[in-house]
Amino acid sequence: MQDLIDKLVKKNIPFSEKGKVANYIPELDKANKNSLGIYITTLDGKNYHSGDYKTKFTIQSISKIVSLMLAILDNGEKYVFSKVGMEPTGDPFNSIRKLETSNTKKPYNPMINAGAIAIASMIKGKDARDKFQRLLDFFKKVSEDDTLDVNYKIYCGESETGNRNRAMGYFLKSEGIIEGNVEEALDVYFKQCSIEVTTETLAKIGLFLARNGKTSSGEQLITPRIAVIVKTLMITCGMYDSSGEIAVKVGVPSKSGVGGGILSVVPGRMGIGIYGPSLDSKGNSIAGINLLEDLSEQLNLSIF
Amino acid sequence: MQDLIDKLVKKNIPFSEKGKVANYIPELDKANKNSLGIYITTLDGKNYHSGDYKTKFTIQSISKIVSLMLAILDNGEKYVFSKVGMEPTGDPFNSIRKLETSNTKKPYNPMINAGAIAIASMIKGKDARDKFQRLLDFFKKVSEDDTLDVNYKIYCGESETGNRNRAMGYFLKSEGIIEGNVEEALDVYFKQCSIEVTTETLAKIGLFLARNGKTSSGEQLITPRIAVIVKTLMITCGMYDSSGEIAVKVGVPSKSGVGGGILSVVPGRMGIGIYGPSLDSKGNSIAGINLLEDLSEQLNLSIF
Amino acid sequence: MQDLIDKLVKKNIPFSEKGKVANYIPELDKANKNSLGIYITTLDGKNYHSGDYKTKFTIQSISKIVSLMLAILDNGEKYVFSKVGMEPTGDPFNSIRKLETSNTKKPYNPMINAGAIAIASMIKGKDARDKFQRLLDFFKKVSEDDTLDVNYKIYCGESETGNRNRAMGYFLKSEGIIEGNVEEALDVYFKQCSIEVTTETLAKIGLFLARNGKTSSGEQLITPRIAVIVKTLMITCGMYDSSGEIAVKVGVPSKSGVGGGILSVVPGRMGIGIYGPSLDSKGNSIAGINLLEDLSEQLNLSIF
Amino acid sequence: MQDLIDKLVKKNIPFSEKGKVANYIPELDKANKNSLGIYITTLDGKNYHSGDYKTKFTIQSISKIVSLMLAILDNGEKYVFSKVGMEPTGDPFNSIRKLETSNTKKPYNPMINAGAIAIASMIKGKDARDKFQRLLDFFKKVSEDDTLDVNYKIYCGESETGNRNRAMGYFLKSEGIIEGNVEEALDVYFKQCSIEVTTETLAKIGLFLARNGKTSSGEQLITPRIAVIVKTLMITCGMYDSSGEIAVKVGVPSKSGVGGGILSVVPGRMGIGIYGPSLDSKGNSIAGINLLEDLSEQLNLSIF
Repeated sequence: MQDLIDKLVKKNIPFSEKGKVANYIPELDKANKNSLGIYITTLDGKNYHSGDYKTKFTIQSISKIVSLMLAILDNGEKYVFSKVGMEPTGDPFNSIRKLETSNTKKPYNPMINAGAIAIASMIKGKDARDKFQRLLDFFKKVSEDDTLDVNYKIYCGESETGNRNRAMGYFLKSEGIIEGNVEEALDVYFKQCSIEVTTETLAKIGLFLARNGKTSSGEQLITPRIAVIVKTLMITCGMYDSSGEIAVKVGVPSKSGVGGGILSVVPGRMGIGIYGPSLDSKGNSIAGINLLEDLSEQLNLSIF
Repeated sequence: MQDLIDKLVKKNIPFSEKGKVANYIPELDKANKNSLGIYITTLDGKNYHSGDYKTKFTIQSISKIVSLMLAILDNGEKYVFSKVGMEPTGDPFNSIRKLETSNTKKPYNPMINAGAIAIASMIKGKDARDKFQRLLDFFKKVSEDDTLDVNYKIYCGESETGNRNRAMGYFLKSEGIIEGNVEEALDVYFKQCSIEVTTETLAKIGLFLARNGKTSSGEQLITPRIAVIVKTLMITCGMYDSSGEIAVKVGVPSKSGVGGGILSVVPGRMGIGIYGPSLDSKGNSIAGINLLEDLSEQLNLSIF
Repeated sequence: MQDLIDKLVKKNIPFSEKGKVANYIPELDKANKNSLGIYITTLDGKNYHSGDYKTKFTIQSISKIVSLMLAILDNGEKYVFSKVGMEPTGDPFNSIRKLETSNTKKPYNPMINAGAIAIASMIKGKDARDKFQRLLDFFKKVSEDDTLDVNYKIYCGESETGNRNRAMGYFLKSEGIIEGNVEEALDVYFKQCSIEVTTETLAKIGLFLARNGKTSSGEQLITPRIAVIVKTLMITCGMYDSSGEIAVKVGVPSKSGVGGGILSVVPGRMGIGIYGPSLDSKGNSIAGINLLEDLSEQLNLSIF
Repeated sequence: MQDLIDKLVKKNIPFSEKGKVANYIPELDKANKNSLGIYITTLDGKNYHSGDYKTKFTIQSISKIVSLMLAILDNGEKYVFSKVGMEPTGDPFNSIRKLETSNTKKPYNPMINAGAIAIASMIKGKDARDKFQRLLDFFKKVSEDDTLDVNYKIYCGESETGNRNRAMGYFLKSEGIIEGNVEEALDVYFKQCSIEVTTETLAKIGLFLARNGKTSSGEQLITPRIAVIVKTLMITCGMYDSSGEIAVKVGVPSKSGVGGGILSVVPGRMGIGIYGPSLDSKGNSIAGINLLEDLSEQLNLSIF
């Protein structure tokens, strides 16, 4: 296994050349384009890692799967999915038009920005600070990492450049999807995207889902049903508008972020965290996707 | 003439029954559904009025034609139309999707909300208060009415319920259409919509355009070119997504507002102000449109 | 006048360099890119012409205004506009999506392809040949030119490459907008687009509308109401998705075709035919538009 | 197992009351709304069935997964997916607008009508008859049922009422997605939709996919890779615009048809065929979906 991942990391680094590091926030732009790292943690307790697996980066959209879990815990599945759908869209993650043209006016799913902002608005707490603190505490439990925190430079950048997300927030408010305060929801959302992680953090969250919501100490933090919901939405909607193609090529529930991270879950087997900040045109780590595809083929990971 | 308009007002009042008074702000809802009034002022100095011509109401979207004039004066035609287009859309006035799907990302024209918010952002001034004060002063000159002011109850309602307009504002900011502060632009926009007028005010603004931008004292406030731009955009885009049909049926540049007002310009002949708060499904005064259609037929007003 | 148009033709020829001749049918591609000609015919019986005013070209979309007249004569205004709207769209002429997203499923107006195909389906006749013959006869009367005929090379090209129009036809059939045979409607449409004209033909049709539907011999072929409908739709929708901008810049009802023709009507004054096959990105004659804009400014033609 | 399915069929029949039998073709309308049947065939050679499992019905959209297999065999994966995408859309199966607004102009995936018509155009053969014969022969091999044939009454109905599909065909032709003859592609498509099956046929095709493309005699008709592609597309796009929700609730690759059929694959375990002609608003068998959901829960079928 160690040999395999060492070999695959080396093989896939060159793909980074064809992509671009996200630069809508200056701070993101500082990433080393050619970085590529992986961390694998298995149900039987083994860990493997290779390449730049220790590099810190912001979790970005991968946070959407964790906030979804807490929102369901806080509000119940029925309420959450009365406000946000479960359908993939085929549109870019920051599309507004689907909100307007859809019959239901609901964001299509919790993995696109509009859905994730609506989900952020459902986290309970007495104010924005309290809501985020609860979410961060939940993140720490799920990833079994007490040191998690926000990268405040990135957070400020998100918050300043986030006018399109702000537009979505107010649209959702006008349609009654967001019931509380829009700026609070956005603040939680911008902060959750700015949580700093490593590939290990992602692999641990993946393992938590691979165990259907149990921590390593055996605590059932979320019901298996919630874990299944999250894993299914990752397959259908987790990789932006390449989700369908990556489901075919990789075949395991995965979620990517523009920080360069990819989190994959192999149900009953392992959690995988990958980092490679050079992105393809859809916003997925370009070397990361290729590494994951090779790994899936070699280890026969596809659930299909 | 007086007989004609008395007769036509009476004839068209019953159409109000088929419409609805705008109620997205409680204050608007207080209007008397069956009101109908008209004020006509001609280039040769005659005035005619009938029905509820003295009733006060908020100008709403009709303000868009006045803010457009000032924005062009402040910034020049070239700049203004680099940010907002001149094309009708066929979509409802508050549509967001066209912003996203259009190649240019520009609002299609200054008569839809997105365009008008962009226009409001171009009014010069050191802060929101100063910008609006300049716009209000310009309104007073154009309408030759020094008493114009904001209905603050309506303004507060607009501002509170305006989340969809706020969404558009932030979208325009994210696309670089709005260069300044979004909340300032929205504040100017909500205030301009809340200016209280009567049919006489509208007729006077219409007369100003019928004279190609001259006041009754002969002052040329705007160039004839700007007057032509405004009148043309009124024909193609002034009556929400009924503009095309109303151009056929009435044939004179007109602009309506959800407060129940309609302002029409008969180039070289007269300005017309109409008030009827019961609206059709597109947002136009239902009795007002019918009154205007009759009047156009009787007086042969169509420019075609 | 003669001096003016000679000067303006010369001045505007160079704009042709910036455009492109339509080439979706090989036959169209044979046009001389730098051609520019104009023909003006006035209500008081004078004719002026300059440049390549004698060149033959296919009428293409300009035919839509003539088929609309006959469809209204054949079916009445009410029926026609129950199937096709009167609203401009802001979308390209061959857009399908608006058909699907519109609430009414009606083509927005008779000037876009979908609307024109629906209009073609309403021409009465016992078969496609008879329908087109009736339309051609009507064309001859309106233009007072007995020699009009189809360019069959162009017609065959239209018919062969017309899959997008065919797609629209079947969509309209599936929505119940077209009640008869789709292929017949398409055949009439492809033929009407392939009628060969000169600038004189266009000027004569323009004059017919400037006289509100009367021929030079005084025969009232269509009601003034129908003439007004056509002229109004020309202003709001006649110049593809530049209609709004050209209404501002030129200010007279106009219709263009990808063959390079432009037909303009100055109500009560004159008909204008222009030919310049080099097109801008929207499909309008690039030199022709500029020539028309100059002419409108010099002769003060705008109706606003 | 037998007890379980008997119980679940009985339990879920009442859901049929809330749905509607497809009626766009009169022949379809003859189905008994309250029918519900199921057939399960396992990898270890056992068969179970209950309810109206012997009723014949047309396969409709479920045929899309079989034609996809043959199209890949005939043309290779690379060619097929250069013409049709792999992304879910969130739009109804017969949407046209996505074709136009998508950057690639490719149908989003082979499970929506536009994609399936494009796929039908790729089946090799010297004419429409030959192409369909090859497809039918392939169907027989995959389902190990030599008696399969077209219901010609349904086929004629499809062909007559298929104007929206015809519109899509010509649109795809105009965009170069369909390279051959449109009417031939449509003829193949209408015929494949009209193949008559029972729940046993569907279960057998499901088993074929559960065995990754092997028949019961051990013949590898398609590569495992093709089987994985098909199963993945079934999860992400197989159940119209409820695919995402049904992936969550059921968790196994499934494909439905408006004839009332559902085909499910439990990788490595079994194939399932369900019949229930009463459809929900998205076009899925309403009792069938509920039966499948219960079965998945009871037998723990979800792959997530």
